[in-house]
Amino acid sequence: MSVVEACLRAEFAQLELSGIGKVVSRGFGDPDVLPLWVGEGDVATPWPIRKAAIEALEAGETFYDIPVGRRELVTALQAYLERLYGIELDPARLVVPGSTMLALNVAVDMVLEKGDHVVVVTPHWPNVTSVMRLAGAEVTHVRQEARAGRWHLDLAKLEQAIRPGVTKALYVNSPCNPTGWIMPAADVRRVLDLCRERRVMVFADEVYHRNVFAGDVAPSFLEVAAPDDPVISINGFSKAWAMTGWRLGWLVAPAGYRTQLAEFSTVLNTGATSFAQFGGIAALGDAGEAIVRDLRESYRQGFEIVRHRLGGHPKIELREPEGAFYAFPKLRGLDDSLAFCLKLLEEEKVGTAPGYTFGPGNAAHIRLCFAMSHDKLDEALVRLVRFVDRHL
Amino acid sequence: MSVVEACLRAEFAQLELSGIGKVVSRGFGDPDVLPLWVGEGDVATPWPIRKAAIEALEAGETFYDIPVGRRELVTALQAYLERLYGIELDPARLVVPGSTMLALNVAVDMVLEKGDHVVVVTPHWPNVTSVMRLAGAEVTHVRQEARAGRWHLDLAKLEQAIRPGVTKALYVNSPCNPTGWIMPAADVRRVLDLCRERRVMVFADEVYHRNVFAGDVAPSFLEVAAPDDPVISINGFSKAWAMTGWRLGWLVAPAGYRTQLAEFSTVLNTGATSFAQFGGIAALGDAGEAIVRDLRESYRQGFEIVRHRLGGHPKIELREPEGAFYAFPKLRGLDDSLAFCLKLLEEEKVGTAPGYTFGPGNAAHIRLCFAMSHDKLDEALVRLVRFVDRHL
Repeated sequence: MSVVEACLRAEFAQLELSGIGKVVSRGFGDPDVLPLWVGEGDVATPWPIRKAAIEALEAGETFYDIPVGRRELVTALQAYLERLYGIELDPARLVVPGSTMLALNVAVDMVLEKGDHVVVVTPHWPNVTSVMRLAGAEVTHVRQEARAGRWHLDLAKLEQAIRPGVTKALYVNSPCNPTGWIMPAADVRRVLDLCRERRVMVFADEVYHRNVFAGDVAPSFLEVAAPDDPVISINGFSKAWAMTGWRLGWLVAPAGYRTQLAEFSTVLNTGATSFAQFGGIAALGDAGEAIVRDLRESYRQGFEIVRHRLGGHPKIELREPEGAFYAFPKLRGLDDSLAFCLKLLEEEKVGTAPGYTFGPGNAAHIRLCFAMSHDKLDEALVRLVRFVDRHL
Repeated sequence: MSVVEACLRAEFAQLELSGIGKVVSRGFGDPDVLPLWVGEGDVATPWPIRKAAIEALEAGETFYDIPVGRRELVTALQAYLERLYGIELDPARLVVPGSTMLALNVAVDMVLEKGDHVVVVTPHWPNVTSVMRLAGAEVTHVRQEARAGRWHLDLAKLEQAIRPGVTKALYVNSPCNPTGWIMPAADVRRVLDLCRERRVMVFADEVYHRNVFAGDVAPSFLEVAAPDDPVISINGFSKAWAMTGWRLGWLVAPAGYRTQLAEFSTVLNTGATSFAQFGGIAALGDAGEAIVRDLRESYRQGFEIVRHRLGGHPKIELREPEGAFYAFPKLRGLDDSLAFCLKLLEEEKVGTAPGYTFGPGNAAHIRLCFAMSHDKLDEALVRLVRFVDRHL
């Protein structure tokens, strides 16, 4: 064993690219590729948000800021969440450590260590379990199932997966990447009750909270959790305001950990990029709600294009997403989703994500993001159907 | 024990604010305070760098980029490091995960887990050991000592602190925050030899590499390490180009871990802020070297102001920094550096950092950053001397 090998943690040395990374790394930057593989559209962040960051740069806002988040940003987030959910929120529970992904890392590092057990509702974004495994945790999956063209989660299965006195945390992403499933409000309450009773921390990944196709916002654990309940809500600007490259997200932690959250934010990324935070403030300002609604309507139309092109195809089982902006169809006759996606990329220049990477039971699925502008989305789907017809 | 308490890791629950955080949180945002407490000046990032980020925002560069860093940025960094150190560097070893602090987190998470032992050259920035303790590691300090007005590190002590078969890593920050000590090139070689032999990973924190008062760059482990040597070099844009708020740093890892670094960058922060990376590219471009030199000359003059105001004072033992941009004087008669800094802030509106937080043996020290514009720096020092004369 080399010196370097001897020094590295097994959890690091064993890291592998996710299925998304394996496909993207083959075609990133190729202008001919129509990319449906990652969770973003192809329209830049709306101008009022960019303008705020540009003005901050012009004004010289390039210094360190408060690591838990610039005061105006935290105040704006507090007001946003209070208004959205009809709650009162102590801003000491709010942190903007960097990206939403970094917020998830904070949540995981607050709770999980080597040997711990965590339950993950799946299908799930692969990065989530990578972070948990990097922390040395053992993951049990509880899978949503498709019934009558929609996704459902059986709470009895969830309850069975929680090992009394052993399981430390439960991860739920609603609206769900990749299925578009939304946990109903009644189930949010039941899951919270269960986790209180079993002494399990809920990692509530709510980053798609505004990407819903009925109503204005998905049910949130923040609506029902008391400040001392075991809930960490993870959220961010990427999906509702088209701000993926900004690396700007937040978490709401249980009350009583202001000092720890401040120090953790300091020693992790020392906060988000200072001038990018002005974009977040603008997103939560007067222009923000129209941006959220316009993007959502565009994504809703995107799914109609998906339905038009893929619905009713004999090889394609399409489920209706309630939120997020992905379709996660099952393809009849598919058993190697990675080979399928790589070949689709090569032959048709369409980028998709292979189902296997979203947890067990998904090897016959692919994920495609329908946030793209509609002409390109339509063209990509035409190519996908052509490819399916040729190979399945 | 509450449900939340039962769920949290002890390493998180026990986090405390650093001494810097304790002082800054008392006075951040107060326009009357002259801040010498954190590692930055008061002049915004030079315009050519800001302009590049503004143009990127105008052009709509707000999407996800490659998590290990935008291609042009990685290529520019490779060229910069090759030119600077006269080496050849495989760009697959280079990662831009977000801030320099985040790069340090990557390095620590690559190596250290609960129960591991790490040796830290001290005095050291408190965030460094916070990250290690958050990972569950045990820290042994080896302290530089002052001789004839300068700081020195006794390598025999370093060797003694490394426990054969137990110690996993050694952290060296050169040029050093807070002392300004620079490890001589001959010692860099000896330490590398020692770590090869003892199978210990070197965390080489080189973020002040261009903040040197003689020559152009400090000796680096990259100059002497082979690709398979146990060295992780951590660096960033904050200090040499005045880019603290950008959260843009990098690390150079041993060869052979491209996939792991890519996946780790993806699941940590999914890369640095996309449009901020264009600022990094500009910093490494034509305008960059003049910026580095001009800032360095300004900081050198800053130390001359410190010498003029503090040198020869009967209560102040001032050591000559060779690099970085801090003075770390010992104050005769001081035994509670935190109380001193808080009272100095209250009475004189000068922000400094208490010595105790930089590791054992520093309770009679304070740290002050002399990167500030010279008039303000001079005024702050006048106030400091007045305070010392009144209280010590």
